[in-house]
Amino acid sequence: MAERCVLHEYAASGNRYKVRLTAALLNIPLERREYDIMKGETRTPDFLQNVNANGRIPVLQVGDRFIPESNAACYYVADGTNLIPTDRFDHADMLRWMFWEQYNHEPNIATLRFWMKEVGVGNLTELQRLQMTPKRTGGNGALKLMNEHLSSCEWFVGDAMSIADICLFAYTHVAGDADFDLKTYSHVLDWVERIKGHPRYLAMDA
Amino acid sequence: MAERCVLHEYAASGNRYKVRLTAALLNIPLERREYDIMKGETRTPDFLQNVNANGRIPVLQVGDRFIPESNAACYYVADGTNLIPTDRFDHADMLRWMFWEQYNHEPNIATLRFWMKEVGVGNLTELQRLQMTPKRTGGNGALKLMNEHLSSCEWFVGDAMSIADICLFAYTHVAGDADFDLKTYSHVLDWVERIKGHPRYLAMDA
Repeated sequence: MAERCVLHEYAASGNRYKVRLTAALLNIPLERREYDIMKGETRTPDFLQNVNANGRIPVLQVGDRFIPESNAACYYVADGTNLIPTDRFDHADMLRWMFWEQYNHEPNIATLRFWMKEVGVGNLTELQRLQMTPKRTGGNGALKLMNEHLSSCEWFVGDAMSIADICLFAYTHVAGDADFDLKTYSHVLDWVERIKGHPRYLAMDA
Repeated sequence: MAERCVLHEYAASGNRYKVRLTAALLNIPLERREYDIMKGETRTPDFLQNVNANGRIPVLQVGDRFIPESNAACYYVADGTNLIPTDRFDHADMLRWMFWEQYNHEPNIATLRFWMKEVGVGNLTELQRLQMTPKRTGGNGALKLMNEHLSSCEWFVGDAMSIADICLFAYTHVAGDADFDLKTYSHVLDWVERIKGHPRYLAMDA
């Protein structure tokens, strides 16, 4: 990429890891600027006005413009590379898994992980505690669907890794942090190992 | 499109409307097959095995293959048309609004509308009733963000309508069904009228 790219991020975020992993696999350099969301650093007037009015990270800065939403940032980084299929159906199918991740996977698995690992169960509101069981059911449903899909293929779309795999990998491979038992989903575990075996793989805490 | 396209749908769904509106604006014919989700018609073994293992509609059938997730189906229908910008930044920015819609807009506004209009408030579970207030806060936050964005531009991305506008329009223009007061968001109302003014506009109940 000709323009300077800066990732505005929070270290514990799996969403930010999607963008870093995409860039690492493609050997693309990314500058990074870290914020502490627990201290409200993404809700300051400066952040809301100049980086993301939605008050969330990660945000990819390209020159003096900004792309919020991790999956869109991954697409920008990988645009024109072999991590995005060119076939029309496969391309839409890749986006299908990425939209599914945001609706069915992240709100269950990532949110439970955030509550259990970052906030602490004892600090949850009553409403959050009541949501833990449906989120566990939803998260296991998502992992089951992924496992069934991966029973007949190595990658989510076509016959090669795409950013759909990266976006789904981020919170899946650490689902154990929220007490999801990945051993129950053997095809998912095999797929996790395939991604970890990439020569330019970057760990989430790297 | 050379291949036969069938939209598997539920009439009251705004997600299905996104795909129909995209096709209408592009003058692309779509066959339709309707299911009654209230009768569980998308949870039958046949549907789960042959249409969408996730048990949800809409699903776009292309020949004998299937694309779940409304926003991905819109992309497939509009691929290669002027509803999808070709500039790399604008394209990622379009996807950014579409991912934002699935994470910040639909789970608040569409879910509240479904609960109030289809299920009925008296039939909600205790957990659903408790979620009504945070979903109203989240929905108003989403409309406020849209309103601020539209205060300085006519369309969400660049200077032309894209599928980001269509995907955001679907549940926004009927947000009144869930008692959101669109009059509070004048730039959103102007944008709604711009879309309705398209010569090939198709109403949600058409």
